[in-house]
Amino acid sequence: MKSRQDVTNLILATKVQKGVTWKSVAEKIGKSKEWTTAACLGQMVMSKEQAEKVAEIFDLPESALLWLQTASQKGTPGIPSDPILYRLHEVITVYGPTIKELIVEEFGDGIMSAIDFNLTVAREKNEQGDRVSLVLSGKFLPYKDF
Amino acid sequence: MKSRQDVTNLILATKVQKGVTWKSVAEKIGKSKEWTTAACLGQMVMSKEQAEKVAEIFDLPESALLWLQTASQKGTPGIPSDPILYRLHEVITVYGPTIKELIVEEFGDGIMSAIDFNLTVAREKNEQGDRVSLVLSGKFLPYKDF
Amino acid sequence: MKSRQDVTNLILATKVQKGVTWKSVAEKIGKSKEWTTAACLGQMVMSKEQAEKVAEIFDLPESALLWLQTASQKGTPGIPSDPILYRLHEVITVYGPTIKELIVEEFGDGIMSAIDFNLTVAREKNEQGDRVSLVLSGKFLPYKDF
Amino acid sequence: MKSRQDVTNLILATKVQKGVTWKSVAEKIGKSKEWTTAACLGQMVMSKEQAEKVAEIFDLPESALLWLQTASQKGTPGIPSDPILYRLHEVITVYGPTIKELIVEEFGDGIMSAIDFNLTVAREKNEQGDRVSLVLSGKFLPYKDF
Amino acid sequence: MKSRQDVTNLILATKVQKGVTWKSVAEKIGKSKEWTTAACLGQMVMSKEQAEKVAEIFDLPESALLWLQTASQKGTPGIPSDPILYRLHEVITVYGPTIKELIVEEFGDGIMSAIDFNLTVAREKNEQGDRVSLVLSGKFLPYKDF
Amino acid sequence: MKSRQDVTNLILATKVQKGVTWKSVAEKIGKSKEWTTAACLGQMVMSKEQAEKVAEIFDLPESALLWLQTASQKGTPGIPSDPILYRLHEVITVYGPTIKELIVEEFGDGIMSAIDFNLTVAREKNEQGDRVSLVLSGKFLPYKDF
Amino acid sequence: MKSRQDVTNLILATKVQKGVTWKSVAEKIGKSKEWTTAACLGQMVMSKEQAEKVAEIFDLPESALLWLQTASQKGTPGIPSDPILYRLHEVITVYGPTIKELIVEEFGDGIMSAIDFNLTVAREKNEQGDRVSLVLSGKFLPYKDF
Amino acid sequence: MKSRQDVTNLILATKVQKGVTWKSVAEKIGKSKEWTTAACLGQMVMSKEQAEKVAEIFDLPESALLWLQTASQKGTPGIPSDPILYRLHEVITVYGPTIKELIVEEFGDGIMSAIDFNLTVAREKNEQGDRVSLVLSGKFLPYKDF
Amino acid sequence: MKSRQDVTNLILATKVQKGVTWKSVAEKIGKSKEWTTAACLGQMVMSKEQAEKVAEIFDLPESALLWLQTASQKGTPGIPSDPILYRLHEVITVYGPTIKELIVEEFGDGIMSAIDFNLTVAREKNEQGDRVSLVLSGKFLPYKDF
Amino acid sequence: MKSRQDVTNLILATKVQKGVTWKSVAEKIGKSKEWTTAACLGQMVMSKEQAEKVAEIFDLPESALLWLQTASQKGTPGIPSDPILYRLHEVITVYGPTIKELIVEEFGDGIMSAIDFNLTVAREKNEQGDRVSLVLSGKFLPYKDF
Repeated sequence: MKSRQDVTNLILATKVQKGVTWKSVAEKIGKSKEWTTAACLGQMVMSKEQAEKVAEIFDLPESALLWLQTASQKGTPGIPSDPILYRLHEVITVYGPTIKELIVEEFGDGIMSAIDFNLTVAREKNEQGDRVSLVLSGKFLPYKDF
Repeated sequence: MKSRQDVTNLILATKVQKGVTWKSVAEKIGKSKEWTTAACLGQMVMSKEQAEKVAEIFDLPESALLWLQTASQKGTPGIPSDPILYRLHEVITVYGPTIKELIVEEFGDGIMSAIDFNLTVAREKNEQGDRVSLVLSGKFLPYKDF
Repeated sequence: MKSRQDVTNLILATKVQKGVTWKSVAEKIGKSKEWTTAACLGQMVMSKEQAEKVAEIFDLPESALLWLQTASQKGTPGIPSDPILYRLHEVITVYGPTIKELIVEEFGDGIMSAIDFNLTVAREKNEQGDRVSLVLSGKFLPYKDF
Repeated sequence: MKSRQDVTNLILATKVQKGVTWKSVAEKIGKSKEWTTAACLGQMVMSKEQAEKVAEIFDLPESALLWLQTASQKGTPGIPSDPILYRLHEVITVYGPTIKELIVEEFGDGIMSAIDFNLTVAREKNEQGDRVSLVLSGKFLPYKDF
Repeated sequence: MKSRQDVTNLILATKVQKGVTWKSVAEKIGKSKEWTTAACLGQMVMSKEQAEKVAEIFDLPESALLWLQTASQKGTPGIPSDPILYRLHEVITVYGPTIKELIVEEFGDGIMSAIDFNLTVAREKNEQGDRVSLVLSGKFLPYKDF
Repeated sequence: MKSRQDVTNLILATKVQKGVTWKSVAEKIGKSKEWTTAACLGQMVMSKEQAEKVAEIFDLPESALLWLQTASQKGTPGIPSDPILYRLHEVITVYGPTIKELIVEEFGDGIMSAIDFNLTVAREKNEQGDRVSLVLSGKFLPYKDF
Repeated sequence: MKSRQDVTNLILATKVQKGVTWKSVAEKIGKSKEWTTAACLGQMVMSKEQAEKVAEIFDLPESALLWLQTASQKGTPGIPSDPILYRLHEVITVYGPTIKELIVEEFGDGIMSAIDFNLTVAREKNEQGDRVSLVLSGKFLPYKDF
Repeated sequence: MKSRQDVTNLILATKVQKGVTWKSVAEKIGKSKEWTTAACLGQMVMSKEQAEKVAEIFDLPESALLWLQTASQKGTPGIPSDPILYRLHEVITVYGPTIKELIVEEFGDGIMSAIDFNLTVAREKNEQGDRVSLVLSGKFLPYKDF
Repeated sequence: MKSRQDVTNLILATKVQKGVTWKSVAEKIGKSKEWTTAACLGQMVMSKEQAEKVAEIFDLPESALLWLQTASQKGTPGIPSDPILYRLHEVITVYGPTIKELIVEEFGDGIMSAIDFNLTVAREKNEQGDRVSLVLSGKFLPYKDF
Repeated sequence: MKSRQDVTNLILATKVQKGVTWKSVAEKIGKSKEWTTAACLGQMVMSKEQAEKVAEIFDLPESALLWLQTASQKGTPGIPSDPILYRLHEVITVYGPTIKELIVEEFGDGIMSAIDFNLTVAREKNEQGDRVSLVLSGKFLPYKDF
């Protein structure tokens, strides 16, 4: 394992070959499925215990253990062409200025944190076809004068 | 009013000069504040009645009325440098692949619609500092074979 | 097979070496040639049966089977320089605003789905030289107010 | 009228203010609604008679007449953020390589012309929601050796 | 004044014509010169009192007052060619990964806030040529698991 | 070791596997932790003695020694998506014009050097949460007429 | 040979190692040197006979034969930094609008085909230094109304 | 006339309104139609006599005369979406490496000048449809060692 | 005069209309023609005396005087399509790594300053055609460890 | 050696491992150090004798000899982040329009050749710190009318 990316690739390949679900990984390490998936994809840092369980589930070699506990390069640059990922960006593109106006109207000058932040992805039952519900919750951080 | 953009600019300037809030506009036209703001910013099409009320609130000239009822160019290209807007894109950049994995695991191959979609922006009371809560709800659309 | 892309590359190389046609693959798995080709190129997800037949046709190893049933990264970013692919984008570039105007005039504010979508590619006999006929059919999805 | 773009802008503004439909323009000049819209948007060159009728419909000044008969800058660069236009590009992004493979399999090395080309936009009745049907027809042009 | 940018342009033009210094503006409104300059350039929101003083200093019209109290589009996209601005980005480009490594080593996984943030620009006396000293201070925000 | 990048990758992998801290490396070579980290990441050139100590700490092969003493390609292009790195660029994007105005007001026409430059990263104790303090110090270099 | 690009790379390496000229290849397969070079570089499709001769000249393995008869990805994106290639694009950049004006003046609305196209590269003897003469010949294709 | 671009715009608008042809302008100033068009579009510098004749033909004001004799910003950046202009770039994209190989094979290391250069655009009669013939002739300039 | 750019545009337009040469401006203000031209184009800051002479030569209004003494936005982003400007960038593109290697070999790790810098543009008489000679002289600035 | 780039990489790695200087290579092949470095980096074509000496100095394998005598892809696209290379581009960005104005004023409409070009890099002794002197000399090439 020469880099965190190597570990992510191995996790993804093993997941397909063994048919593991993210939900089952989350249950085994006792965190939400959202955080767990993000952590397996290299966006979050695991504790020693979490790393050991994940290594066991995905048959990772010894050398992967420390990578799972290391802060790696986060995010991916640009707006991807994959239809799911693109639509998420499109939502921001279409509704972003609306969200900005409403945050500023409600809270004043500041931002919604993307760090003190959490996420839920859920199925919303609906007769006209089920819906995907994403709940994004981030702390409001005001600009201060100094 | 030569274009929809002219109408948006006039709305924004009048909003600042008269101190109008989006919430009050929403109440007057009887829709959510999220849809109303998006519509005033030119991302949604208004009905004749909605357009007339908005024109009254923002002192818009006669020629603005039809523009408010017309589908215009939606979205804004690229990832903006404004801190609120950037962090929204960053969330997708960091958590997007996670969201994708979980949608596919729960629903199978398909997307979350950005059209049959709605949005809520709300304050979440919290002792360690209030939070911004965004709820995104979009219909799941499966790919089909043909 | 470390990734879906590896599987696609192997399919393409074997196709050239064995002289397989997409039409014959489509017949063997009982789907249209358009969907079949897209699926082999990694844009669609196969069922277990489809995957097994495709693996047989292209002599794919065991480890390819699950990749064929997995949702992978779709689309390719940017506008390519290949003349066929470029001209398809050019058509959208030249006629896109026309298509938009006519969809909105006929259906109102909304889009043509790229997910609930299918495609036919056919030869159109013509005395002055045969023509390529592409039929794109996508469900109309209206924006709703909320 | 200092440029073809000025004429297009005036047509679009007048269309909104007078409530003209593209279909009615097409009927008055006796061409398809697809070609007519493209021509009004500055992508096609009109004959003198067509230009005169269009000028009448949209109350264009004398100086617009010759612009309507002039070849202007066609297309718009890049991939736009507008959801309708983006999805058209996405279709090419997802299905473009498929279309290429099938054109080459059926016709050999060459392209589908974007010039000797026409387009139909139609409503396809469907119980589960009507569909937009786009038919693109372009002459096949083979590469020749020399 | 049709936009916040109009106000910024007028401030900058008046500043040159009247020979005002940022330091003197800061003294009059009782804030640091760093915050004051950022606020005049449209990156920060002023209170009513601050706006009135700034309007007086720069002879701004009545209509500018509310713009100064409004959150506008912040930041400027891309990496500019201006040598001062470029070198600031270059510092991040050369030392950014170093800063990241040291923040993570000292604080764990998280970021330095760019919102709960302040800045000092000062002259550092030095015999071999004076130096510019920039002090950037931002709250550490940890990622949390959820 | 075929390139300086190979050496950097090996340092980073060994650092994770052996749990080395940058601070301890800095102490062993007797330089600041900021310069040491930048040098290990390939942004600075080491002396023979420094290179030998670093090679020992990270178990580098003989062939790495000369690479550590060689000027390599510095910086990384573009603005990265990693949240720490992005926020550093955002600070420049939001406060850069402010910094420029204040440097010019204090020193006249010129720049802050990014070469005759040094950097400190420190923890700033604070009751409302500790802060990251970055001190950037660069020589002022005036433009001269000629 | 896993891709057409592999074949191109092998042809280029062998050409350098064996000192083959494009002109001699062209003579052996009985086509122009322009078409032959383009075909060897993967821009044109060869017949079985042509492929066999080319394979013999460049000692290509059996598995290359079918790749030479396959339509591959054509063109290279962007404007390259290589001085010869850049100057060719510069000519279009400087004289392109001139060429457009003159084609439209002579032929009406349409294009010069890049498919039904051929090319000659020749030396033009000249006392003040020989010149490169490029002759580009493409069929005129008119836009038609429909 | 505040810039060369103003003059170009006025020439183009007058050309449409008066129905002038480039060929007739070329005859009046006694140069080729290719050079004349390029010069009117601002890519070439005119002599005083040429400028006066052009000013007369297009009813240009006195202040345009000196602009026509001034070297302005040449070229237009990027690859345009206009179909004629794009295809010219596509030709370079597809055949550029071929042209490079053949120039180097015939002349050795060097370039074809884009400055000591001329251009002819002509109709090539052809039974299967007339062709556009572009002849590009540029001096070969060798790299020299020094 | 609302901005430094307004002043530059007026200088350029007046220069063409009055036929002023940069050399004559340089003589009147007693600086090199290189610095003078850069200063008139807004890249350098003038003293009060220099600004007054320049204002006189180009008939600039009173309000331009202070702009000439103000540090404005320097540089222009990207690589321009203008042939002179492009070739200057090409030289760096082709010879830049060579220059870097030779600076590092001669001086050690550091840069050539672009601020403590000057420039001469001269004609070099030569029988085979005169040459342009550019002499760039910049102080060497070493990186230091800290 | 599969490509010219392979040869360049081997030269660079060997240069570091053996401690060769460019100046000594230049002396052995009897050319300037500037041309020699550019040629070793793959920007210039060597003669057979030069290639043999270079191969000997850097212990290159037999298969490298012909690559050194072959015209390869020149230049590198974009503006790099490396501080030396960036500052060279910055000089063009800041002084480029000045250089253009002065070339045109002295020589008329045309360019400075980047092909019939040479370069000297030298140390300029100076009491306030030595300077890097770059002398760029390129033939003036006039545009001609035709």
